[in-house]
Amino acid sequence: MAGAEFGEFERIRRFFAPLAGPGGLELLDDAALLDCKAGHRLVVTADAIVAGVHYLPDDPPELVARKLLRVNLSDLAAMGARPLHYVLTTALPAELGSEWLARFAQGLGEDQRHFGIELLGGDSVSTPGPAVLSLTAIGVVTAGMEVRRNGAKPDDLVWVSGAIGDAFLGLSLLRGAYSGLAPGHRDYLIRRFQVPDSRTELGPLLSGIAHAMIDVSDGLLADLGHICETSGVAAIVQLETLPLSPAARFVVDPDPHLRPRLATAGDDYELLFTAPPSASMAIAALSSRLGTPITAIGKIEPGAGVRLFGAEGEKISVDQTGYRHF
Amino acid sequence: MAGAEFGEFERIRRFFAPLAGPGGLELLDDAALLDCKAGHRLVVTADAIVAGVHYLPDDPPELVARKLLRVNLSDLAAMGARPLHYVLTTALPAELGSEWLARFAQGLGEDQRHFGIELLGGDSVSTPGPAVLSLTAIGVVTAGMEVRRNGAKPDDLVWVSGAIGDAFLGLSLLRGAYSGLAPGHRDYLIRRFQVPDSRTELGPLLSGIAHAMIDVSDGLLADLGHICETSGVAAIVQLETLPLSPAARFVVDPDPHLRPRLATAGDDYELLFTAPPSASMAIAALSSRLGTPITAIGKIEPGAGVRLFGAEGEKISVDQTGYRHF
Repeated sequence: MAGAEFGEFERIRRFFAPLAGPGGLELLDDAALLDCKAGHRLVVTADAIVAGVHYLPDDPPELVARKLLRVNLSDLAAMGARPLHYVLTTALPAELGSEWLARFAQGLGEDQRHFGIELLGGDSVSTPGPAVLSLTAIGVVTAGMEVRRNGAKPDDLVWVSGAIGDAFLGLSLLRGAYSGLAPGHRDYLIRRFQVPDSRTELGPLLSGIAHAMIDVSDGLLADLGHICETSGVAAIVQLETLPLSPAARFVVDPDPHLRPRLATAGDDYELLFTAPPSASMAIAALSSRLGTPITAIGKIEPGAGVRLFGAEGEKISVDQTGYRHF
Repeated sequence: MAGAEFGEFERIRRFFAPLAGPGGLELLDDAALLDCKAGHRLVVTADAIVAGVHYLPDDPPELVARKLLRVNLSDLAAMGARPLHYVLTTALPAELGSEWLARFAQGLGEDQRHFGIELLGGDSVSTPGPAVLSLTAIGVVTAGMEVRRNGAKPDDLVWVSGAIGDAFLGLSLLRGAYSGLAPGHRDYLIRRFQVPDSRTELGPLLSGIAHAMIDVSDGLLADLGHICETSGVAAIVQLETLPLSPAARFVVDPDPHLRPRLATAGDDYELLFTAPPSASMAIAALSSRLGTPITAIGKIEPGAGVRLFGAEGEKISVDQTGYRHF
């Protein structure tokens, strides 16, 4: 199926074959090969993104590629899995020439090296509509060590990695908000929106510690809601304990009403998990070892649903527990 | 991300969760799990299709689903792999309501049962453009028993399963050609275009017999060219030996100039392979056991390129060795 300037084969040879590892057979075969090791499980996840829906058509192609890869690696990390490979299909409009594709492949290449993973195969087709990019990521976990959503138990503490709300504020900045923010903070928040820090090291290390885990994509409260629903439990979250980055604090401190909004904002790709109180020392040690903040923000209780409380113990209602993309 | 009438979660719960096997964890988790067996390799392939490019927007959704699945299973079969699972991402426009999706899922369900495979996971997003459907299929092969494209050797015979050209004639019929053809032949050819018989039984049985294998998607001569290029050999094909279905013969016999066109027509998803002459008895036995014709159509030689010869030994030049979709 013809692309803008290259046919499918030339496009694959030129841009994608250099990204393929041995399992991808240089993308010359009908399919790719993946060795299996006894006692391991492969973990598979997929996400699709659409130009104009999940990213802006003029976003830098390198960053689009890296975000697409990282949101998938984040899903693997949330299962406690180590990433190995990915499969990519692209449906691209003719207007996107080879320069866009070259930059897109360059972004993938950088992140491949960063995460130590390889392209396994895929497909490349034309579309008269906006670009649709679909990525399937494959990771590995020792059998039985995978962390699922459904293991949360009453009395577990609720923890979250890194900082919450950066991606929401980064997107707001890109839309023109907070124009007085210092350039350093501004760049940091936009970067957190464009290239999330998927916690690929932390995830596998939480295997055996976390009872239940998810990554924050729909929003902290919504994603905690998914854990509660599948685990058959309730959760409470203390708003004041939500970890904010220094840059986010510069925006939120003058406008405290923004804080509950960050509890519902998505796209942070931090790990949200529950663990028994006895695990707190191990979690602190992990946090210190990786240099990644891990913060207790609430507790699991019997019942159903997620409730948010303020510093005075007052219940805070949020009108939106999910997150919609622009 | 919201769909036409259902949100993503409701859409997944309603239409896709019933298709998920145990590895898919009821599609409730961030990713799906796949057990590994020692001594096996997983085989992974992906294809994306776009409404208006690879299928017509008003094609029956059941058939779109089954073809998308089968073209991927055909790639697995061409490696000698048995299909296990698939991962699906859909980018759908709002106009496609839940009836379309219900019928699409029904088509997947029918073929899942037919092939004994299960949905592992995926993603479901909205697009303002035409539908883009991307499917990653995962199969399994005993390590070392995979069949690749690069193993063809001089003196190998070239074989093809089933019949060639049916899909091209089926598409021509859908476009209004051959209006005098009997309804039975007509239905057969259209069916072969819409729902290819991916040779999932034959493929694994050719492991250990075939030196090189591919499925006929771009066109018989083009796909044989891929084998020759990666194997570093040449091939000759005898036009008169191309296996045609009885229905195709009704169209081609009155118009012999059509025959070379069928050698370049794609979308048949038959298996095209090379094997040493000593394997001919084993291939005949397989053909008889499965009730699937397997026909010797040519030979591998030293050199490069694919040449087509007519009944009188004359070289036939074809102006198009690849196949472009409508």
